Amino acid sequence: MQHNFNAGPAILPKEVYEQASQAVLNFNDTGLSILEIGHRTKLFQPIMDEALALVKELMSLDADHEVLFLHGGASTQFMQVPMNLLDDNASAAFTDTGVWAAKAIKEAKLYGNVDVICSSKESTYNHLPKEWTPINPESTYLHLTTNNTIYGTQWQDFSPFYNAGVPLVADMSSDILSRPMDYNKFGLIYAGAQKNIGAAGVNLVVVDKNMLGKVSRKLPTMMDYRNHIENGSMLNTPPVFAIYICMLTLRWLKAKGGVAAIEKENIHKAKLLYDTIDAYPEVFTGTVAKEDRSLMNACFVMQNSDAEARFNAMCQQEGFVGVKGHRSVGGFRVSLYNALPYESVVALTEAMKQFAAKG
Amino acid sequence: MQHNFNAGPAILPKEVYEQASQAVLNFNDTGLSILEIGHRTKLFQPIMDEALALVKELMSLDADHEVLFLHGGASTQFMQVPMNLLDDNASAAFTDTGVWAAKAIKEAKLYGNVDVICSSKESTYNHLPKEWTPINPESTYLHLTTNNTIYGTQWQDFSPFYNAGVPLVADMSSDILSRPMDYNKFGLIYAGAQKNIGAAGVNLVVVDKNMLGKVSRKLPTMMDYRNHIENGSMLNTPPVFAIYICMLTLRWLKAKGGVAAIEKENIHKAKLLYDTIDAYPEVFTGTVAKEDRSLMNACFVMQNSDAEARFNAMCQQEGFVGVKGHRSVGGFRVSLYNALPYESVVALTEAMKQFAAKG
Repeated sequence: MQHNFNAGPAILPKEVYEQASQAVLNFNDTGLSILEIGHRTKLFQPIMDEALALVKELMSLDADHEVLFLHGGASTQFMQVPMNLLDDNASAAFTDTGVWAAKAIKEAKLYGNVDVICSSKESTYNHLPKEWTPINPESTYLHLTTNNTIYGTQWQDFSPFYNAGVPLVADMSSDILSRPMDYNKFGLIYAGAQKNIGAAGVNLVVVDKNMLGKVSRKLPTMMDYRNHIENGSMLNTPPVFAIYICMLTLRWLKAKGGVAAIEKENIHKAKLLYDTIDAYPEVFTGTVAKEDRSLMNACFVMQNSDAEARFNAMCQQEGFVGVKGHRSVGGFRVSLYNALPYESVVALTEAMKQFAAKG
Repeated sequence: MQHNFNAGPAILPKEVYEQASQAVLNFNDTGLSILEIGHRTKLFQPIMDEALALVKELMSLDADHEVLFLHGGASTQFMQVPMNLLDDNASAAFTDTGVWAAKAIKEAKLYGNVDVICSSKESTYNHLPKEWTPINPESTYLHLTTNNTIYGTQWQDFSPFYNAGVPLVADMSSDILSRPMDYNKFGLIYAGAQKNIGAAGVNLVVVDKNMLGKVSRKLPTMMDYRNHIENGSMLNTPPVFAIYICMLTLRWLKAKGGVAAIEKENIHKAKLLYDTIDAYPEVFTGTVAKEDRSLMNACFVMQNSDAEARFNAMCQQEGFVGVKGHRSVGGFRVSLYNALPYESVVALTEAMKQFAAKG
């Protein structure tokens, strides 16, 4: 029995594996594999339509917000977002809260001016900034990373940003669809699929269409969101299988009760893990400010490298996969995405207790 | 029993479906799905390594040629190639032999000057140009589409291009790995995977590293081939499953005897189909010049729409999938990629004979 705490690509629901495995052999009793069906066909179009509709429904999006499945991961969006939104002499505001936020900042500088309004870089991103320089009301947008996968911090209160008076752009790769949010308050949202949406190989973009068509530069065909909207995410051959996996995973989430229901489970899982970390302060030390702890990625370190080696060995023996921390932080990172069963957290925390008891 | 003549996404070997289906449930007996494994792990790295090595081996590439698996399809390369290679004031030469070639031309114009040295557009791309305006020896490169999927033409003799004195860039999406070629004679080759390499959702790029780093523009991180080379096609999360499918398909091709062996089968399949078309000129009419006929995509029309409707009905009844021609050409297109069994062509041609006999 394996418990998969991978940070991404990450665990998906068991029924998604079962359905996908069957579809690779024989999709919907057509005698064809899902891998060999054409994208402009009666076989694939309903998959795309359902995946798009499920995103709209689960995020409660209004009519102005368009949903796209695009090639590439969030790293492609670091470039594509400013290319589409940020004009040469215009400015965008950024919050520097982790490695991915920093990469978004770097790419945006190729297209316009960047104001970094706050940063927790100097303390290895171990908290979210509580203060920032005033946001220029002329900013084309304000960019947030809602959850910082590597460091394990997550924005909880968005009201200051909702009230900033500029459109919001957010990288939600590692916490999208994990909690109810007013997604319509965002001008553009992007997320690599490989955490809460599906498998690696596709990117979700939600964009308020009123944001588009305002830059003066000429956009390459494949980079212009408007072309993808017009073509229903089939401007070119889409990543068929990856979108199918998204559709299955979104169906599962809807059947679970959607984002409100999954948030309860996510809180429940995270509480058990963080409570266990905090119960043994002489053994486990959480790496980030408590008020900024992520419900998706929990990071902790141990007293010394000897203890960490023993803990790693225990994880390997017990089938706890993917708990090693990112190389820039060290220690451990336990990812608790939507599809991770509560039972896996129980198993891990029981093992942590035994480990702590042994001293 | 289905016979899948789809133009892409297209048929893959049966054993690829079987292995992939199993890997979605339980990859290599790890207890994990291939969809949930991390990319920077001992589980995925060997897949990437093997896929890259198989491409090098099957294409007999020299040490200067780097192999990359990238996000997006060939349509992304229409932009990425000139962005990396074509400087603002430099020129590239293009052969306009189909819709995809025309799209490559359109995107290149965003980055530099474009000389279209020949075009068969006025005759609906029903042949390959036999003459062209002299190639400017100062051209940064000459761009070819080796096989025109929609129209069913394929370049056979590359010697005039090899001798053009400028680097060659080729979109080989629909005939890569279908025949031995001197792939090292090309400065850059790109191909969407969903015909002869694997499933939709990944792009193969082979590039002579000496071509890179010569443009003056600043490249976005995700667009710069050098970053992908340096990171072994893992600059960001790669499309894990799509690359796994490539690896399985490439393994299958190697076991078959590689490109030399598969070319024999491809010739055999195409000969049977074209001979059948030509045997009934009162029923079937090939749409392209005989000397330019593609071994991958065979296009034909029928006398009238009534006959085409009856033929379509017959195909549906007999399980011949994906034979409808592209909407810009009409009629029929039968795709004969590497993985299509000879038996499928036998079944189709037998049905064509019976159809023709009925009159």
